[in-house]
Amino acid sequence: MSLTERQHPFDVATQLTRNSETFHGHTSEKYNNMVGPFGGITAATLLRAVIEHPERQGDPVSLTINYAAPVSDGPFTIKANPARTNRSTQHWFIELYQKEKIVITGTAVLASRRHTLSSTEALFPEVPSAADSKRLSTDDMPSWAQNYSIKIIEGLPLQLSQTNTEETADSVTIQWIQDEPRRSMDFLSLTAICDAFFPRIYVRRKEMVPIGTVSLTVYFHADSEMLTHQGDKAVLAHARALQFHDGFFDQTGEIWSPEGKLLATTSQFVYYKA
Amino acid sequence: MSLTERQHPFDVATQLTRNSETFHGHTSEKYNNMVGPFGGITAATLLRAVIEHPERQGDPVSLTINYAAPVSDGPFTIKANPARTNRSTQHWFIELYQKEKIVITGTAVLASRRHTLSSTEALFPEVPSAADSKRLSTDDMPSWAQNYSIKIIEGLPLQLSQTNTEETADSVTIQWIQDEPRRSMDFLSLTAICDAFFPRIYVRRKEMVPIGTVSLTVYFHADSEMLTHQGDKAVLAHARALQFHDGFFDQTGEIWSPEGKLLATTSQFVYYKA
Repeated sequence: MSLTERQHPFDVATQLTRNSETFHGHTSEKYNNMVGPFGGITAATLLRAVIEHPERQGDPVSLTINYAAPVSDGPFTIKANPARTNRSTQHWFIELYQKEKIVITGTAVLASRRHTLSSTEALFPEVPSAADSKRLSTDDMPSWAQNYSIKIIEGLPLQLSQTNTEETADSVTIQWIQDEPRRSMDFLSLTAICDAFFPRIYVRRKEMVPIGTVSLTVYFHADSEMLTHQGDKAVLAHARALQFHDGFFDQTGEIWSPEGKLLATTSQFVYYKA
Repeated sequence: MSLTERQHPFDVATQLTRNSETFHGHTSEKYNNMVGPFGGITAATLLRAVIEHPERQGDPVSLTINYAAPVSDGPFTIKANPARTNRSTQHWFIELYQKEKIVITGTAVLASRRHTLSSTEALFPEVPSAADSKRLSTDDMPSWAQNYSIKIIEGLPLQLSQTNTEETADSVTIQWIQDEPRRSMDFLSLTAICDAFFPRIYVRRKEMVPIGTVSLTVYFHADSEMLTHQGDKAVLAHARALQFHDGFFDQTGEIWSPEGKLLATTSQFVYYKA
């Protein structure tokens, strides 16, 4: 059995080899979306270049990934440039290239965290436990969705909500989600899960239209200690859109541990054709 | 009377001169914060470099600005690099330098918009009109605040809320805000207003602690036509924090026209010492 066969598909999909100033990777069929790879795996791969960079200091605090063009199936190159290193924070530019053209741009902020007085204002949604919730069949969905166990409590996309063929009143989704097969959570899988909501417009409109995330931002509230404690349990993911307007809609979301700890907040802006 | 004397202080503060590949500007005392300039004026200045770049195509859709180090009073240099230009979108890297060190990093996405079916899910808050609201005295505040008329409906910072010396239950702020002297809104002033909330921790805790925005993201729902219609009227700005944890808190916000049109959504992640 080769090393690759023993690795989790997520680790294979985000795997990079470093060659002095650049990292080299390859898209993974297992994380394909309708066109090109799932945006969450791409974001995780760019963050992985930062985390594996020899000059990296601290853990991720903030990440923004901009999808400038579709990623083609095949090899890609990532450049992660430490733009500024301070005593306790570090700022990065990140670029993904294919055939010498930039396909993805991004920035990341890393920091050394200290424990402080903390307070959570957001409320953990009232939901049945993951164990008491029914797993969504992803058989007819793009391959990336097969790598997750998704249990939607509210806000099913498209025709999955048979009881409501009208446009629904809002685009809120609450779902339990975890890697399948199970995998202990780290900053990379948390990043991907921030992008693993079905597009808000499919919750709202119940019909397919072309869409594409333009920009994704993740704020990491969790440190590595909290992620270790999270392990491979399901997280509760909550998202909504505030407005669909002239070809773009927003999405904001929260990712919670089952014990009610807020692990990440996230936002994205998405192009749609309607 | 010189040209500068006739210009609005906002236009003076964000003014740039281009020298082939770089833009040169200078901090403005009028937009000073406690340490260095107000983050909103810095973000607007980086966006201005993109907008004034000869290769610019389309209007701003998404902007992320990362504050890597304090901006020092004095001159600065901005490089805006078009990373990828597509038929209807354009992706940018932006950097602000002082003394050859990177101080700010950022990315922007521009697009040519089309009118589509639109829908707003967020609700315009129930508030008195700007005309019926009382202007906050900013006399004891840093100079940037003197350039705004701010009328706080809910969520006063610090000791300003005399009726409540305990920590308040949440950190929501709703405020009317407009440039003072008046100025017709554009993408630059909208960007600055996205950062013109007093820090959430001052609303929540009623005491001063050192803070600094790490990363700011703005999604522009408005196109230039909507901004022209907005003119110099006050906008309603609504913000909250979801969690304060181990030295960082998030803020999400919405900027509304008085007619209830959502002009922008915004998020930021902020360092605090407590």
